[in-house]
Amino acid sequence: MFAVTILGNNSAIPAYGRMPTAQVVTLNDQQFLIDCGEGTQMQLAKYKIRKSKINHIFISHLHGDHYFGLIGLITSMGLLNRENDLHIYAPAGIEQIIQLQLQVANITLPFSLFFHVLHTEGILINENKFSVECFTVQHSIECWGFIFREKKAPRKIDKEKAVQYQIPAAFYNQLKEGLDYVTKEGLIINNKDVTTTNIPARSYAYCADTKYFEELIPKVKDVNVLYHETTYLKDFEEKAILRFHSTTHQAANIAKQCNAHKLLIGHFSSKYENLDQFLTEAKEVFKSTELAIEGVCYNIL
Amino acid sequence: MFAVTILGNNSAIPAYGRMPTAQVVTLNDQQFLIDCGEGTQMQLAKYKIRKSKINHIFISHLHGDHYFGLIGLITSMGLLNRENDLHIYAPAGIEQIIQLQLQVANITLPFSLFFHVLHTEGILINENKFSVECFTVQHSIECWGFIFREKKAPRKIDKEKAVQYQIPAAFYNQLKEGLDYVTKEGLIINNKDVTTTNIPARSYAYCADTKYFEELIPKVKDVNVLYHETTYLKDFEEKAILRFHSTTHQAANIAKQCNAHKLLIGHFSSKYENLDQFLTEAKEVFKSTELAIEGVCYNIL
Repeated sequence: MFAVTILGNNSAIPAYGRMPTAQVVTLNDQQFLIDCGEGTQMQLAKYKIRKSKINHIFISHLHGDHYFGLIGLITSMGLLNRENDLHIYAPAGIEQIIQLQLQVANITLPFSLFFHVLHTEGILINENKFSVECFTVQHSIECWGFIFREKKAPRKIDKEKAVQYQIPAAFYNQLKEGLDYVTKEGLIINNKDVTTTNIPARSYAYCADTKYFEELIPKVKDVNVLYHETTYLKDFEEKAILRFHSTTHQAANIAKQCNAHKLLIGHFSSKYENLDQFLTEAKEVFKSTELAIEGVCYNIL
Repeated sequence: MFAVTILGNNSAIPAYGRMPTAQVVTLNDQQFLIDCGEGTQMQLAKYKIRKSKINHIFISHLHGDHYFGLIGLITSMGLLNRENDLHIYAPAGIEQIIQLQLQVANITLPFSLFFHVLHTEGILINENKFSVECFTVQHSIECWGFIFREKKAPRKIDKEKAVQYQIPAAFYNQLKEGLDYVTKEGLIINNKDVTTTNIPARSYAYCADTKYFEELIPKVKDVNVLYHETTYLKDFEEKAILRFHSTTHQAANIAKQCNAHKLLIGHFSSKYENLDQFLTEAKEVFKSTELAIEGVCYNIL
């Protein structure tokens, strides 16, 4: 499974029951939290996502609507006697904020908390089947996006055919990697004749809070699902520039240029009660757009 | 009007949709926030209590379920262009926590924030018609309770009678204070014959998180409404002692001994889904008990 569940889709001030930013990425039976606005622990409970399953939390930047829920989540994990390590990937500053709050309450957590300061673009987590990378976006303070990428799955050997072509078992690993086999006689056995593709590797990019930033395009090239903020409708481009945020058309333009399969839009300004216009406008530029709606789980396809 | 509205009634870990501690006291067209657990700004919005009306916030202690919502509330007030001063009454430590979080986000608030460190029992606010006092309770870390007291209203002069008894207008202020008038001939005009009582002064005491603490009794003597925590049912007295919390019977015993008109119980442990037993048990000792239920506004009578 590879999916993202939205826990909050609003910008700075919570409004109309919309909560600040938080998302859970489910990937290969692991769950990753991206951003952690105020109330995230309640949202996790509401959508029956177990806090204990989360071992990695990614914080894009230190505006409160993206991290004020972190201390509450951490202390609740402690009260629930968590034992597993918890890793926090965030800009510098978060460790001091968390430790200070633990200290004034005399709290010693029953688990280890590891803070990983974001400083260069690149891989944060590298596992057998997937990786998580960070990249910079352009906001009013230091701000990071995150990409979750499945690794290319090995090709699947059609054993009957491999035997038929007399390919030695010692070569099977190379077959899985996509290499052709060359017989002693110099005959080339085309890899595709003896293997089949597994599901192609998918990817999800979360672009956090950012102004329209074309340098993003190569960073998120060809992702399956692109999450891009749309704090404002297209008419508010000037305000968007001023506040380092994006409009619907700007987000959709990035999605189009980076060749995403799907665009997910969120981080809506509290000035808007109804969100329909966001979808309409984004679709004018990029058809395959969806609103990031609280509680909805979007498959990465 | 003198009333308290409950925004959260749960203890440390939010559970069953119950939120952490926060209450709003409405007194003479002013609103005061007591404690500010995570999500308080959303709860204020839910119950249509305007953030802009709150000028004073009282934080009992620095356990997260009593203050993690403060930074979110303050920053939202800033984003909404608040101009009025905001006063925070809290144990030492809160200022550093708030300032650090404003600093990492480069936030300059458009209003002045005043931190008043709680250090001695006594009056925090003294206005014409009411006062707010703080007093210590006994918890695992430094912890404070708060009493809101209306001042004794002046007695109302029955002008017809005052004229009839030939009391000079120059003595009217003394009449309002309850003094008898003595005529030149030495005749005593009983104050009660020429004045009537206004509504008696009412009071509300919030006892925060505390173990059973008999020293509380004189501090909250004769209050109209006593809010006392009941984290546990009566069978968990040992656990309550260990964690510096109280049981139903303990809270009700304090209410009985201090001669409160009414007891309001809250801060329920997340181990309990149903709260009926809390009410039943407290009433075994003190009949005039109510559960502190989210969204309910309790008149102070």
